[in-house]
Parts: sequence; structure tokens; C-alpha cells
Amino acid sequence: MLDVALLGTGGMMPLPDRALTSLMLRLEGRMLVIDCGEGTQVTMKQLGWGFKNIDVICFTHYHADHISGLPGLLLTIGNSNRTEPLTLVGPKGLSRVYEGLRTICPELPFPVVLKEIDGGESIKESVFCINSLKVSHKVTCLAYRINVKRAGRFDVEKALKNNVPQRMWSVLQKQSEAEYEGKIYTSDMVLGRNRRGLSVSYCTDTRPVEALPDFIKGSDLFVCEGMYGEEEKLEKAKEYKHMIFSEAAGLALAGEVSELWLTHFSPAMPFPEAYIKNAKDIFPNTKLGKDRKSVTLRFDEE
Amino acid sequence: MLDVALLGTGGMMPLPDRALTSLMLRLEGRMLVIDCGEGTQVTMKQLGWGFKNIDVICFTHYHADHISGLPGLLLTIGNSNRTEPLTLVGPKGLSRVYEGLRTICPELPFPVVLKEIDGGESIKESVFCINSLKVSHKVTCLAYRINVKRAGRFDVEKALKNNVPQRMWSVLQKQSEAEYEGKIYTSDMVLGRNRRGLSVSYCTDTRPVEALPDFIKGSDLFVCEGMYGEEEKLEKAKEYKHMIFSEAAGLALAGEVSELWLTHFSPAMPFPEAYIKNAKDIFPNTKLGKDRKSVTLRFDEE
Repeated sequence: MLDVALLGTGGMMPLPDRALTSLMLRLEGRMLVIDCGEGTQVTMKQLGWGFKNIDVICFTHYHADHISGLPGLLLTIGNSNRTEPLTLVGPKGLSRVYEGLRTICPELPFPVVLKEIDGGESIKESVFCINSLKVSHKVTCLAYRINVKRAGRFDVEKALKNNVPQRMWSVLQKQSEAEYEGKIYTSDMVLGRNRRGLSVSYCTDTRPVEALPDFIKGSDLFVCEGMYGEEEKLEKAKEYKHMIFSEAAGLALAGEVSELWLTHFSPAMPFPEAYIKNAKDIFPNTKLGKDRKSVTLRFDEE
Repeated sequence: MLDVALLGTGGMMPLPDRALTSLMLRLEGRMLVIDCGEGTQVTMKQLGWGFKNIDVICFTHYHADHISGLPGLLLTIGNSNRTEPLTLVGPKGLSRVYEGLRTICPELPFPVVLKEIDGGESIKESVFCINSLKVSHKVTCLAYRINVKRAGRFDVEKALKNNVPQRMWSVLQKQSEAEYEGKIYTSDMVLGRNRRGLSVSYCTDTRPVEALPDFIKGSDLFVCEGMYGEEEKLEKAKEYKHMIFSEAAGLALAGEVSELWLTHFSPAMPFPEAYIKNAKDIFPNTKLGKDRKSVTLRFDEE
């Protein structure tokens, strides 16, 4: 199972009752965060999942509302007694921006590893499979998709057919290969076909680009910006490279996702609920994001 | 009159119900801020004084909890349509730190002027007379004192004695000198002795140094850190270069200030009210800081 929490729902600037947009995932006790603007550590504290097990922080881009909380968050993670390395992932520019920000957090009790990506790669960090896609904002910006794969069910007939010794059966359900009496056995000798996994996609600060529906295809949850609710704001959205609610819903429909959460609301839109119909008319399973709205996604038979 | 608001009362990290320590002053409609950690712009928004007229931001030092909110605050000030220059004042290192932070706020619609000071100077920025003193923390750190001077009362006999033409009487109550029919007249020709002004002192992140009582002498309000409430935390305070409540109260007493507000509470001290007696026993007019606690200081006869 995969826990997902939308830490905030604001764009541009934090407001007293709306934290900046950030997503937190928890899998097997390890955590990944996408974006951390000013105040993300506060809403994280309210969520209560702790800080120490944050292994990866991904950035869509480096506008302040997506990264200004990084120095404080790193210091707070440090205060939680973390000593293991923490990885930052983001588009080109990460080293430059991190070098700039660390002027105010020069001493951390853990190493920070930087991974600059172009978008398009699939990388594994900690327990997370991270996919990225270059989207279209005023600066280079990435969408992310986190996949949780699920191995096939144990198949006793297959194990017998492949002459796998019985004492290796449980071992090969936990690891992909193992040696026994000089012979290598692999997990595919005892497991059926991979079962359906879980996936969460996250996309903010972009126009709806052509590759997005394929990128998010079949996600259990699609967290997407809805900077403006009103249809009349389409031209403004085009100018500032954002989306209106109905465009996000169009992506969710084309991507055949299970559920859409809207987020990254303009500070000039205090009541996004007034426009939810614009999305639901296109993609009925649209939910309005709320600060610290969370869900536990479970495998099919769980 | 001078409006004063303590924006937050936390040290080290922002908490859900406690913003980081920052002080805001408003004089003649212009504003000055001392320190702005992560989330300061949010508590400012709650206070409701606006952003556009912030002319000066002073920094005691560059630990993240005192400056990490700067990029976001500058962007929000920019969104308020400010175009006039804004001045940042702080100890040595300001240029380096600002250069680092502006990687995430590279484009602002107003110029930013940097003034690095050593401590000990008196400078005038906007309508504010800013005095500083080097104190003792793990890094270079300054205490600040903002003075509001008050001219003397109009003295008709003095004006007549100095042969100041009657049409210049009101002019010289507003400006220090003026010319009339080829002759220069100065305000001291029509005004009595300077009257008592107003002053606010601010001191966080230091041990109580010897020069502090003189520096804060007679302040109407002294805002001072009280990182730890318990007397038993004195050794810890010495180690981390902070103060306990009773030390702050000792400074207030020696400095003969009118009122003391304690702030910059440790995140490990959720209920500072439990220890207020330790300060009041030494300096009875001690108040516990609260987020957005504010006061309007008035001249004697106002």
C-alpha cells in the first residue's frame, strides 16, 4: 500500500489557510516529497508523518513557491537526527539553486545527493520508482509519476517445474535472485506474472502538453494544478503557462486515471469549490484538493 | 505614534501555532521589519498591515530561521505593485546570502539596496533611525534599536525673538530649514527643545553582553529572546549562545526599559507561560510575546 498526502493546495504564495502545493508519499515507511515551498515543513508537522524518513525530495521547477521551504525543511530533518544521505531530484539548475540556498543551511548532519534529470528518465531512489516528463512552463518544469510495482503471486507448480528447492521458495518471494548450492535461482522461477501495481502522477505549472495523457495513463491518482477555475481565465492561463480546471479534467479523462485531485489554486481564488463543476462535467471523479487531504492506495486484493 | 507588532514568537523552526520571531514597525505609513524567517509573510498577511510600504528589512544574522522567508516575502511585495527601492540591512555577509537566495527570486519589480553594517552605526532608512549593536552568538549577530525623534513644541516668543516671518512659522514646524526672501530660516528658530521620542529595542540570538543595558536604555519596548524558560537551562543557553527568561529580565531591569516582551521560544517549550514568573520576579513589567501581539506607542502628550 501507498500513503499519499497533498500537503498544500496554494500557488504563488502561502496563505494563512492554504499552504503551498506539495505532495508527500509514504511506502514501506520511507517517504518522498514533491516540491517544498515556504511553510511545507509546517503543514508536514500538522500531518504528523515525521521528518526523519524523508529519503527523496523532487522538484518540478525552481520558482520560489515550489522550493523556498527547502533550507528550513533540511534543517528540521537534521534536527530529527537523520544521518543517512537524502537525495534531491530536479531539472537542470538544481546544483546552482541548491548552492544558493545552502548559504543559509551550510551545516547539515547528513549528506545531500543531487540528481539533475532532463525529464523522460525512470530512476529508482530509496523504494520509489520515479518517472518524469518535461512539460511546458515559463522555465523548465517536470511532471512526475511514482510507480509501485507488484510482483506476481507465488506459483507452486512453476516452482516445482523449475526444480527450485523448497527452502528457496520464501527467499525468492522477497528478493529477485539467490544462490543455493552453487546454483542461481531467480524470482521469476517461482512467481506468476507481475500484478497490477500502484501509481500516482503529479503535474503543476504547465499547459496541458500532448505527452501528458500517456505519461499519466491509468494512474490511481492524478494530482494536477487547477490555477484558475473559471473558463474565462483560459487566455490568462495560456499567458502564464498554467491550466484552468476543465483542462486538468481533460487530461484526467484522456489519461484514463482513476481519480483527479485539483490543487495549486491562485491566491485570487479563495473559493475553488465555486468552479468544481467545470471539471466534474468532463471528469466526474474530480476532487478538490484540501491541505493535508490524504488517501491510502491499496493493491487490488488488499 | 509608532505601531509595533511582534509577528511571531518561535525560534529554530516554524510551528503550526507559532510563527518565527520577527518584528514589524509602522511609522507615518512606512514599514520596517526585523528578521523574516519561513512563514513571516503568512503571519504578516494575518496582521493585515499590507506589504507594499515595507521600505526596510533588517537582519540580526543569517541563520535560516531569521531569513528563509526573504525570497517569498520579496516576491509578495513585488505582487503588491511596489516599484520603489527596498533596503536590506544586516551584518557582514548580506551580499553573499542575498546572492544565494535570489537564485529563487531573480526577477523583482523593484530595486533591492544592500547595506552591510558592522554594528555600532546609526543610520536613517526611510523614516526610521536604526541603531545597531554587535552581540554574541555563534555567528555575527546584531541587536537593533529604532528611535523616533520628536521635535520641540512651537515657541511663539522664540519665533518673534528670532524675527522669523509669520508665514514661515508652519513651514518650519514641518521641515528643518527654508528660504524666504533670500534668507535661510531653521526650525530651531521657532521650536523649543526636542521632546521625548519613542524607541523600541530588539535583541535575539545572543548571550547578555555588557553593552546591552546601555544600548536599550530607556526603551519604551524591549523585545528580547527568551529561548528557555527554566533556570536549569542556563548551561544550555550558554552553550548555544541564547538566554533564559531571567537573563532577558535582568537586561530589561538594567536598561530601565518600560516594558519587556519575551520571544524566540524553543520549539521544545510549548507552554512558555509556565516560566513567566522567572522573568517577572526580576522585571515585573514582562509580557509573554504572542504571534501578532501589537501595541501603538504614543508620544507623551498624545
